[in-house]
Amino acid sequence: MKLGILGGGQLAKMMLPHAHRLGIETTILDDPDAVASGLATYHIAGSFQNSEDIKKLSQCDSVTIEIENVSIEGLESLEKLGIKVRPSSNVIKVIQDKSLQKKFFEKNSIPTSPFSVQILSKDGQFPNSVFIKLCRGGYDGKGVWNPQSDSTPPDSFINQEVVVEDKVAIKTEVSQLIARSANGEIMLGPAVEMVFNPELNLIDSAFLPTDLAPQMKKILETIAKTIVEKLNYVGVMAIECFVTADNKLLVNELAPRPHNSGHGTIEACACDQFEQHLRAVCSLPLLSWGTLGHALTFNLIGQANGTKTQGPPLVEGLEKVLQESNAFVHLYGKKQCRIGRKMGHVTLVDDASNDAKDSYHKLMQKKKRIEQWIKVMPQ
Amino acid sequence: MKLGILGGGQLAKMMLPHAHRLGIETTILDDPDAVASGLATYHIAGSFQNSEDIKKLSQCDSVTIEIENVSIEGLESLEKLGIKVRPSSNVIKVIQDKSLQKKFFEKNSIPTSPFSVQILSKDGQFPNSVFIKLCRGGYDGKGVWNPQSDSTPPDSFINQEVVVEDKVAIKTEVSQLIARSANGEIMLGPAVEMVFNPELNLIDSAFLPTDLAPQMKKILETIAKTIVEKLNYVGVMAIECFVTADNKLLVNELAPRPHNSGHGTIEACACDQFEQHLRAVCSLPLLSWGTLGHALTFNLIGQANGTKTQGPPLVEGLEKVLQESNAFVHLYGKKQCRIGRKMGHVTLVDDASNDAKDSYHKLMQKKKRIEQWIKVMPQ
Repeated sequence: MKLGILGGGQLAKMMLPHAHRLGIETTILDDPDAVASGLATYHIAGSFQNSEDIKKLSQCDSVTIEIENVSIEGLESLEKLGIKVRPSSNVIKVIQDKSLQKKFFEKNSIPTSPFSVQILSKDGQFPNSVFIKLCRGGYDGKGVWNPQSDSTPPDSFINQEVVVEDKVAIKTEVSQLIARSANGEIMLGPAVEMVFNPELNLIDSAFLPTDLAPQMKKILETIAKTIVEKLNYVGVMAIECFVTADNKLLVNELAPRPHNSGHGTIEACACDQFEQHLRAVCSLPLLSWGTLGHALTFNLIGQANGTKTQGPPLVEGLEKVLQESNAFVHLYGKKQCRIGRKMGHVTLVDDASNDAKDSYHKLMQKKKRIEQWIKVMPQ
Repeated sequence: MKLGILGGGQLAKMMLPHAHRLGIETTILDDPDAVASGLATYHIAGSFQNSEDIKKLSQCDSVTIEIENVSIEGLESLEKLGIKVRPSSNVIKVIQDKSLQKKFFEKNSIPTSPFSVQILSKDGQFPNSVFIKLCRGGYDGKGVWNPQSDSTPPDSFINQEVVVEDKVAIKTEVSQLIARSANGEIMLGPAVEMVFNPELNLIDSAFLPTDLAPQMKKILETIAKTIVEKLNYVGVMAIECFVTADNKLLVNELAPRPHNSGHGTIEACACDQFEQHLRAVCSLPLLSWGTLGHALTFNLIGQANGTKTQGPPLVEGLEKVLQESNAFVHLYGKKQCRIGRKMGHVTLVDDASNDAKDSYHKLMQKKKRIEQWIKVMPQ
């Protein structure tokens, strides 16, 4: 089995050990400096945004992605050659375009926040009660304009197609992991609670399991199944949802691959999201995820080192963390550390037989302790 | 942290994922075709038996082995440069020479079967009650002569130094895993039961935990601690022991690295033998092994394909095994399959809360089923 992977970042890196032990030959298309490029069976230097480069994967049986902003044209040309592109170019097309994603939700009665699609004119007026999102190219948090904090739109938004989305009062965010195989078999994974840091005003960790009521959980699972079935999806998907103040689920975004919110499955599940994804895209049987523990995952984010804001990474305090049992450090091996860049993550695990809330509080305390020790910064 | 690894076989391959996530840069010295060569951070084409090639690892902070028949001279030259060779050249010297190993046991009151050391003369007469073992070069089961089955010694034994070892009545064999760090910290790992196949007359699997009585277990642990302390050993060691018919423990062999008998720790321990070994040799803190389950491990051995006895491997029945939960397949990715060659292994896991004997019988049944499905043979 020959698998091509578009992108050689940390998600590809975490797929590789499973590929290596299951007899899957991997070829990564990315820059030679990407963290997983040198660790795959083969590496092709090139860009996953360049359709000609993608065509170089034509010797593969299957091709998957670890990042979604890839060339659709490239995927289509592989599909024409009979290569199994999973997820397919059609799915990636929908996910790359926020208006198509929103319309897909609407068409299939998937709950999502109210929206409209329009071309943003230079002097368009918007109320404070909306977010404006670029339909295309708004990758990784960029491409969102909040009229409440800045009344004039960013230049890059002018004359572009945007989704105008109603703000909703959010209680929390959850991520549902799910896998679907090419023959339509579905394995529902755990749902993960995104833990919000009110001081920093950002999501800073993920806890497995969620605190959702059984009824809400059922609804979330039905939503997840509907999404992968309607998309004829193959692979692992993370479905990010808002839980509103009045306990409604609204789908926010789809990640068509293993996702940051699912890293806890590495230690807390019998079959983690990376193995499950490989199984799906390589036409191997899916496994029950088999949740074995509670897990809290938090990212190791690049910090400033005095006045230095970028450079080769220096990891401080690693040894101290490695003395802790049930604390699993994953350094991604990125050659450059920049402020705000994801340089790794840590997962803290607790026994599944403990009360989930007790585990949560215990692991959050442990996280606070560990975060005071370990720092990744430029040398 | 830069780690050199002598040898690029499956043991190195199983170390790599942990090295990659702990920020350890690996350099493997071996043939480019060796399974782990292309998966490390760096690779140096050469032989671990050639001292000049070993010197090419002089840019590493630490150097370890995944196979013990390496050039001692090469290790010594690295040590002279101040590189941390773990285990040290002195340890490897003792382990490469069966007479030194036996004398080490004798000197330190480690129980072992009675023996003498001599030069084997052409017309030496030996009783049926002994095994004759070449002191040096008798790697991987080769280099043992049983006078009972063949009255004339093999040519390669003539004029060589040999250990003449009394045969003992054996009930079973066990392997004790243990790790020791450079500052003398010791982490006792699980003891593993080697399961003998009476039909094939060979060890065909390893079960964790052993069935040893608590008192015997204690003795085994004391033996293991004495060995690593007296050798000033750094790394993971597997200590293979006979359990005699009259319930005595006799140390048979030392494996100065992760060992086939310890593969079950990958799935059944919080810290497996590969991570533990890396921690020890890279001066990172050791972890409690944290045994979480019962595990039965068996090798996938190359079989004949009709009249074909060697060629690129063909794996039959993989998909069927991958449908089983708690069955973990590890294919080593060797480019050539030969009859009798270790091509991979499978570990079957059961809950640690179950009775160990029940687990054993259940997993042995599962093994029999799985062995009928999966076959590795030349194409």
